[in-house]
Amino acid sequence: MRKEAARLDASDTLRECRALFEIADDVAYFDGNSLGALPKAAPARIAEVVQSEWGQRLISSWNDADGEGAGWIDLPQRIGAKIAPLIGARRGEVIVADSVSINLFKLISAALAMRPGRKVVLSEPGNFPTDLYMVEGLEMQDLAERCLAERADIEAALDDNVALLMLTHVHYKTGEMFDMARLTKAAHDAGALVLWDLSHSVGAVPVDLNAVGADFAVGCGYKYLNGGPGAPAFAFVAERHQQALKQPLSGWMGHARPFDFTDDYEPAPGIDRLLCGTPQILSMSALEVGVDLMAGIGVDALVAKSRALSEFTREAMAQVVPELECVSPADPETRGSQLSWRHADAYALCQALIARRIIGDFRAPDVLRMGFAPAYVRYVDCARLVTELRDILDSGEWRKVEYAQRGAVT
Amino acid sequence: MRKEAARLDASDTLRECRALFEIADDVAYFDGNSLGALPKAAPARIAEVVQSEWGQRLISSWNDADGEGAGWIDLPQRIGAKIAPLIGARRGEVIVADSVSINLFKLISAALAMRPGRKVVLSEPGNFPTDLYMVEGLEMQDLAERCLAERADIEAALDDNVALLMLTHVHYKTGEMFDMARLTKAAHDAGALVLWDLSHSVGAVPVDLNAVGADFAVGCGYKYLNGGPGAPAFAFVAERHQQALKQPLSGWMGHARPFDFTDDYEPAPGIDRLLCGTPQILSMSALEVGVDLMAGIGVDALVAKSRALSEFTREAMAQVVPELECVSPADPETRGSQLSWRHADAYALCQALIARRIIGDFRAPDVLRMGFAPAYVRYVDCARLVTELRDILDSGEWRKVEYAQRGAVT
Repeated sequence: MRKEAARLDASDTLRECRALFEIADDVAYFDGNSLGALPKAAPARIAEVVQSEWGQRLISSWNDADGEGAGWIDLPQRIGAKIAPLIGARRGEVIVADSVSINLFKLISAALAMRPGRKVVLSEPGNFPTDLYMVEGLEMQDLAERCLAERADIEAALDDNVALLMLTHVHYKTGEMFDMARLTKAAHDAGALVLWDLSHSVGAVPVDLNAVGADFAVGCGYKYLNGGPGAPAFAFVAERHQQALKQPLSGWMGHARPFDFTDDYEPAPGIDRLLCGTPQILSMSALEVGVDLMAGIGVDALVAKSRALSEFTREAMAQVVPELECVSPADPETRGSQLSWRHADAYALCQALIARRIIGDFRAPDVLRMGFAPAYVRYVDCARLVTELRDILDSGEWRKVEYAQRGAVT
Repeated sequence: MRKEAARLDASDTLRECRALFEIADDVAYFDGNSLGALPKAAPARIAEVVQSEWGQRLISSWNDADGEGAGWIDLPQRIGAKIAPLIGARRGEVIVADSVSINLFKLISAALAMRPGRKVVLSEPGNFPTDLYMVEGLEMQDLAERCLAERADIEAALDDNVALLMLTHVHYKTGEMFDMARLTKAAHDAGALVLWDLSHSVGAVPVDLNAVGADFAVGCGYKYLNGGPGAPAFAFVAERHQQALKQPLSGWMGHARPFDFTDDYEPAPGIDRLLCGTPQILSMSALEVGVDLMAGIGVDALVAKSRALSEFTREAMAQVVPELECVSPADPETRGSQLSWRHADAYALCQALIARRIIGDFRAPDVLRMGFAPAYVRYVDCARLVTELRDILDSGEWRKVEYAQRGAVT
């Protein structure tokens, strides 16, 4: 298997890409779906933003009137335009701002305002927690009613009380991937709007928002986009909805003329009205490096490699470590860029792997999760995961793992 | 005047502090109330976060179980605890998160929930725009009613419909400073709660939230705290309100046990429930450097220097450039750490000063605004501002200023 993996690496069209990231050669990093690795170009770019743009040019860096300024003020739109082709969106349909949670609140609110008389936001139990919690926030305000239906029952639950179907395209724990086209159509047929959370999709699986007619989407900057810890998130609004869009986090950066300093809010035209407060420029600048890198590789190559890596690993694991129950779909058409296995001691196994510099993560209560970031994961890393996990199970060394877990940010 | 300024600098107890910042010797920087200067310690710290914590230690940096990790997960509370003594708050009453705008939304919502039957949020016209716009967001949700009263009429407007009095302590344009104790008492006497925006206060003027019995506050990280462009903001909730506090931006980081990944939201105890999404770690790490620096100098020294600088400048300007109308209060007791003057050509004057490396800013339509960041502004800078402005007005060079203005972030 090691030999086959080396052969696949040698013929991999993305084999040069790992060198664009700061990852030690002896580290097999399967946690790029939690925190993407550091692009080698990032430290210099961040140092430039800190020392030159902030330190030397100070306040003038907000502007770009003469084309020579740092143009901080345009970063949300500029990075959004670079993300757009990765998700089948047009320029002007994507903006970078705040966090996934905050952007969910904006877009759920907007959807409810567009469907007066309907209050239900439909999702599934076990969706990523923050998605469900943000609906609860609107429920607390008495503006929404949260309704959860199991996957198989979602289409039946789409009645005329549903304002919005809100789903995460690739499930954070199992890697299950929704059929975005089918569910978007089902929502529309029921008169509802649809909001896709692309946190575990962007940069790793095929997404074509406009082809399926999606209304809204959000996504994460710190996973496959390699934007750095807690990188700002993005939001998508289909062009046809932008003119009418109303969202309650109406901060000054979303105003039509923020520097007129008027007392009354007037939303900016287009996607800009999703902005709220002043963007965090250092984090945003790091995100731009990650996005540039991924956009440079191109979405088709990323998607193909991602699928090949997970298929290779799924098959090898089934053969070599058959006692681990794979909870991810076997069919790559219905799976994201990750594999998860259930084991009563998943936590201890995860720690034992980490001790051998094979980094994946644990999701309570019993899931061992491995993400395949296509830009830097090698086939030899996958082979090593499988053989070392076999060895760990056989040797029993994982039984010695005792230390406490504080959790990590998905 | 130059001589007197040099004498004051020589005897200034903070004279060594300017060397802690990256500011060219020939720059007189009066825009620290818009974007604070770069602490010299920041580039190395940020590089460490990027290269070591993100690049090398990857996902493990979220944790700090053994006291040796980077502990990103604790940054919001850790930096909040350092800000607390600057504003008269206790440990556990301040947290760093999101932006001023987003934190306003959380706290206005919380206040409305605590005053059922009352919907009015009272503020003043001309308050910083985002403060007013965030109330409009809640008005759009039909949860609030915005009411604006001129300063002199605020106390009379505090009737039993008012849930919250929301004011900016130091006015961003004029520098006028509210009597926080008096207005807090007036609000409480009317059965209302009070929320102070400390964006132009923290690190420059005396603030003692608990002494005046304030309920809520927000503040900005990128002005006098020198936290970097768009640095995250902070929020204060008096301990007595924390247990009952409900806010609708109920993201996973504000959950009691975020890593249990449950479907139902349960707010964390205490101030942590103000967290929403994943914090932007690079920007947050830069803020910590700025806060450490200011906390190290100490609030009393900062406040004293700030007042002395602005008094020196106000008197010198009145004498040397009497045709500029000062719109800031003459009494330093009722003024923040800034001075503003009205002039029909304020924009051109501001640009002419910038051309001479004297950096202040313009606020539409006709205000020239100078902020006195006590940690690095020198008396000789103030003297230079006055004499060069005289020279600019006499020479008429400002009449040649034509280029367009895009605005800068206050």
